[in-house]
Amino acid sequence: MGKSRIEAFTDAIIAIVMTIMVLEIHAPETSTFKGLWGIRDSLSIYAFSFFVLSVYWINHHHLFSIVHKVSGRVIWLNMILMFFLSFFPFTSAWVLEGGHFAAKAPELTYGTVILLANIIWALMVQDLIRVNGKQSLIGKSLGADYNKPFISIGMAALAVVIGIYVPLAVFAIDGLMFLLWIVPEKRIERTLQNNKKEDD
Amino acid sequence: MGKSRIEAFTDAIIAIVMTIMVLEIHAPETSTFKGLWGIRDSLSIYAFSFFVLSVYWINHHHLFSIVHKVSGRVIWLNMILMFFLSFFPFTSAWVLEGGHFAAKAPELTYGTVILLANIIWALMVQDLIRVNGKQSLIGKSLGADYNKPFISIGMAALAVVIGIYVPLAVFAIDGLMFLLWIVPEKRIERTLQNNKKEDD
Amino acid sequence: MGKSRIEAFTDAIIAIVMTIMVLEIHAPETSTFKGLWGIRDSLSIYAFSFFVLSVYWINHHHLFSIVHKVSGRVIWLNMILMFFLSFFPFTSAWVLEGGHFAAKAPELTYGTVILLANIIWALMVQDLIRVNGKQSLIGKSLGADYNKPFISIGMAALAVVIGIYVPLAVFAIDGLMFLLWIVPEKRIERTLQNNKKEDD
Amino acid sequence: MGKSRIEAFTDAIIAIVMTIMVLEIHAPETSTFKGLWGIRDSLSIYAFSFFVLSVYWINHHHLFSIVHKVSGRVIWLNMILMFFLSFFPFTSAWVLEGGHFAAKAPELTYGTVILLANIIWALMVQDLIRVNGKQSLIGKSLGADYNKPFISIGMAALAVVIGIYVPLAVFAIDGLMFLLWIVPEKRIERTLQNNKKEDD
Repeated sequence: MGKSRIEAFTDAIIAIVMTIMVLEIHAPETSTFKGLWGIRDSLSIYAFSFFVLSVYWINHHHLFSIVHKVSGRVIWLNMILMFFLSFFPFTSAWVLEGGHFAAKAPELTYGTVILLANIIWALMVQDLIRVNGKQSLIGKSLGADYNKPFISIGMAALAVVIGIYVPLAVFAIDGLMFLLWIVPEKRIERTLQNNKKEDD
Repeated sequence: MGKSRIEAFTDAIIAIVMTIMVLEIHAPETSTFKGLWGIRDSLSIYAFSFFVLSVYWINHHHLFSIVHKVSGRVIWLNMILMFFLSFFPFTSAWVLEGGHFAAKAPELTYGTVILLANIIWALMVQDLIRVNGKQSLIGKSLGADYNKPFISIGMAALAVVIGIYVPLAVFAIDGLMFLLWIVPEKRIERTLQNNKKEDD
Repeated sequence: MGKSRIEAFTDAIIAIVMTIMVLEIHAPETSTFKGLWGIRDSLSIYAFSFFVLSVYWINHHHLFSIVHKVSGRVIWLNMILMFFLSFFPFTSAWVLEGGHFAAKAPELTYGTVILLANIIWALMVQDLIRVNGKQSLIGKSLGADYNKPFISIGMAALAVVIGIYVPLAVFAIDGLMFLLWIVPEKRIERTLQNNKKEDD
Repeated sequence: MGKSRIEAFTDAIIAIVMTIMVLEIHAPETSTFKGLWGIRDSLSIYAFSFFVLSVYWINHHHLFSIVHKVSGRVIWLNMILMFFLSFFPFTSAWVLEGGHFAAKAPELTYGTVILLANIIWALMVQDLIRVNGKQSLIGKSLGADYNKPFISIGMAALAVVIGIYVPLAVFAIDGLMFLLWIVPEKRIERTLQNNKKEDD
């Protein structure tokens, strides 16, 4: 089964989710910089969520760039991933209502969505390896010793647990976790550059 | 006539419809889990509609993956399908107003949109076979004994009829109907894998 | 200059415009069919605008399918076309405020947007022919005797003029005009089918 | 690393940003042309922002058309560019609240977003040249004597400084600056036409 439409669909969903979040930043009540300062929470959560979704998109881009085949199961896992990512406008808006990131329930919900997305991610990587085979590009790049998805699940789970006591910790720990994903997999990069050379 | 722009357009429409539905989930009034529980209806209908649209997208993806030619009529049928699918944010929002899925009119409207979408789907499949010919991939895969679109129309019609007496039945019966479509057509899969082998 | 990104961008814009219009259909005040009847104006204008945008998209699809080169001027004309089409959610919403399509200003504005879009369309077709040459596919298909864009400008202008006296006429005359565009250009179809044969 | 998904993602983000801005144009309070005149500020800022985003998109289109390789750094710079562009619906809405473009804070914020976007643009161009090499298409086209990005940063900075005293100047100076970018780089055009000839 081809992968291009899944990529296109994923691009569209993530782009829309990122962009409609901006609708939640309401114009300040006054036309002053004090007014702008008054919506600093809105701007912060928007920047944070935009960053998180960027990380997911960039890594999705990299992951699928070395994939040749997808299965019906992969498509559904991807769809469930999109489902969880689509909650960002909602959780971001709810976090704001709590005021200054101190309310427990919205922060924990925000963190739980990330935890669930990470679990689906790990399942999807495994499935992609199984479908493409251990000798495929993805099989070789992200084989047996590839633990990052599991570390990320662990950190996201930790974020939720610590968040029960210190809500703000959700953003701190999840933020750290996403920093791990900023630099695209070196292994994927290498595989891709080799391919690139052959293509040129 | 090429099919790629129709696919791209369909991807965009379905992605947007899925994603703007999340704008209808308003943040709970309180920053507590009780508040979250209070919007369980919003979350349920969002999950259900997201699932329904996922099924349409995945099957659209599969259907068009074995199509070579499209006609002006197919493009218009696809457009009408998009028109009905675009009603999901509206019908989902209206269902919520009725409260706990007990109001008749919104549920029946929700079910009618699905019924109409299914009718268009069946017409589109027939047209695609006619345009591509009986000896084409789609002609062979979804030929004379392919009754699933008609069964789905029947079930969606049943959902509306039963829904007159028990509104909630619309979701139950349509939900069952969409379960039939979760696993992509085996016949299409087989055809595609054969092609894939030749491509690799 | 390649045309694929212009197509992709156009697809995205039109898909979003079509879909966000649905946000203007507010759920009826009551959960009854009477409530649904109460928003018939919303539903009608949505269906009409969706139809109009479908016609623009389908004809854009056809037009660009026979284009090989685009110029900077074509890109800007296309952008201006997108600008006018992006007004549909606004003009559709305003028409509704007037009540039962009887107010003059909103209807005339709605019609003026269509008139302007048609003028840009005609300019774009001319430019595409100039850029691709008279011996190109588009030059041969839509050459000297191709008057449809001008007839459409005339009809859209007529719609605005008559609309000054009978606002509803805007929809009637523009509706008729768009019917002319439902069937994609036969000449384009023929050209495309010839190409298709060579591709297969 | 391939560039097509970055292009597709950028197309989607810019298309959505442009289009959701129209949601900020609220229907006039009365169904008269006087009512339409009453929202002239909304319409003006929409047209201006649509124009600005068009310029960014068209130049992005041109820039990437001569790019062969992208790096992880380029992807992140592009993402940050998208982040700043996504603020247009917000800054456009805030500018409106100030009334007749006379308030300082919203105008300066609007201008600052453009300034930041221009800085990222310049960094991205430099990185693309470094990644693709000085002998690549982009290296030859936009080499050592290519000062336009820096001139644009200077003008955007000037717009913000003058804006402190005359808020409206932000639009005047930035408007002038974007006029420089209306005509796509001649150098890119030439490179592309040469390529085109080889492709045909």
